[in-house]
Amino acid sequence: MPGIRNIKLTIAYQGARYCGWQRQKDDVTVQQTIEDALAEIVGRKVKIQGASRTDSGVHAEGQTANFIVTDDCHIPTHAFAWILNGRLPADIAVRESVDAPAGFHASADAVRKTYHYRIYTRREKDVFAYDLRWPIGFGLDMAAMNEAAAFLVGTHDYQSFASARDTRDNAVRTITDVHAETSPDGDEIIVSVTANRFLYHMVRNIVGTLAEIGRGRWPAEKMAHILAARDRTQAGPTAPAQGLSLIHVEYPKIFISPLDTAPIFGNTLES
Amino acid sequence: MPGIRNIKLTIAYQGARYCGWQRQKDDVTVQQTIEDALAEIVGRKVKIQGASRTDSGVHAEGQTANFIVTDDCHIPTHAFAWILNGRLPADIAVRESVDAPAGFHASADAVRKTYHYRIYTRREKDVFAYDLRWPIGFGLDMAAMNEAAAFLVGTHDYQSFASARDTRDNAVRTITDVHAETSPDGDEIIVSVTANRFLYHMVRNIVGTLAEIGRGRWPAEKMAHILAARDRTQAGPTAPAQGLSLIHVEYPKIFISPLDTAPIFGNTLES
Repeated sequence: MPGIRNIKLTIAYQGARYCGWQRQKDDVTVQQTIEDALAEIVGRKVKIQGASRTDSGVHAEGQTANFIVTDDCHIPTHAFAWILNGRLPADIAVRESVDAPAGFHASADAVRKTYHYRIYTRREKDVFAYDLRWPIGFGLDMAAMNEAAAFLVGTHDYQSFASARDTRDNAVRTITDVHAETSPDGDEIIVSVTANRFLYHMVRNIVGTLAEIGRGRWPAEKMAHILAARDRTQAGPTAPAQGLSLIHVEYPKIFISPLDTAPIFGNTLES
Repeated sequence: MPGIRNIKLTIAYQGARYCGWQRQKDDVTVQQTIEDALAEIVGRKVKIQGASRTDSGVHAEGQTANFIVTDDCHIPTHAFAWILNGRLPADIAVRESVDAPAGFHASADAVRKTYHYRIYTRREKDVFAYDLRWPIGFGLDMAAMNEAAAFLVGTHDYQSFASARDTRDNAVRTITDVHAETSPDGDEIIVSVTANRFLYHMVRNIVGTLAEIGRGRWPAEKMAHILAARDRTQAGPTAPAQGLSLIHVEYPKIFISPLDTAPIFGNTLES
């Protein structure tokens, strides 16, 4: 029986043309596009496991995924990146393909993810990056936004920022960082959120709430009340998908070490 | 009989979704998209005259155009820009709408146009701006390119850089500037070309030739021989459309002055 190889990918994509990451029956998704390219390369269907099921129109600079091939596949691990890039469309890139320990799972083993949300603040219509940021047409009060953002850091029940479509019972998560900063060219405000896991639409609901505060409709302290309310109707509107990008997925050191090579299917050879 | 108003627009667009500027029977073009929006606003069909018939996939930061309405149209001139922007798709913006003299013609009266061509030189796949620049994956010798570019400045017969599809007899034009520079982030080389008028594919053929020189296949002096040959087969390949953008169209001062208001239809009232 052949052994297995577990390969980890780091992936960037412009999400505008895709109905999100996760494979769907009738719509084109990023996962399906990569799986189709991979199937051509290895000659059989291969399922890839993504760290995050990004939504329709959401982008990634550092999505991660893993897939298993048997070790009768003779393609060198690092070569998967460039072979895939040659077959993938222009809006999906594999930045890196590396060997992962046999037990590695891109979603279950992720300990932290960072998203960036780009708000375009100039009045001029944004024809060259209209599907990469949320155009609001005016500046926001950064000090108020950052004061409000600080209330979100910690381990809390984030029910107020969960989509009604999120059916998971437990909305307790740990946010380690939320902050807003201005882009070097001054055209954008970038909101960065890092957490262990995210609820559905959580970043977009946080950004929509921060924007209400940044434009002066609500005081910064209102964020504390919204968080405590555990009620989605208290928070601001959901910011549109196109401003959101998954920047980075972090794993425990043990999974990054090539020394951790425990077999995934147990001790078949010894039994 | 009502008098007329001649209105000049400055227009930006991301050309990826359009079959170029000029109205066509079966394909969606920028001109047609703006004309359709304008027709909804003024309540009748209005033809707009663009300065440059940019090709399929080519962009503009400063295309200009003009159109005529009779002065029973009560929309203030400056308001056309924002009313049009509200009706145009996200990838077309009207930057400005101003009154022009009655005789002004956006194409015939243009004295100089500047195009920029963006070459992406990093090895990494360019998923976020893949339809805004030409990815070549390596740097180019800027000194050699600028040495070669200098041969092109002046009044010359540019037949070597005209597409075979360009059927105009006379290929004499005046180029006042060609130069290449690196973008501030170091990811791009931007080739800028300013001329009185352009042949079909002229900038893209110049850039394709400069790229051959920049990668060391040809010496810089070869540009002088290519120019003198008046033979398209001597020059380099045509660089792809998506790197090209019309930046600026220049007019003589007389057309910018609001004092020049000679009627376009002659002296009807006096005859």
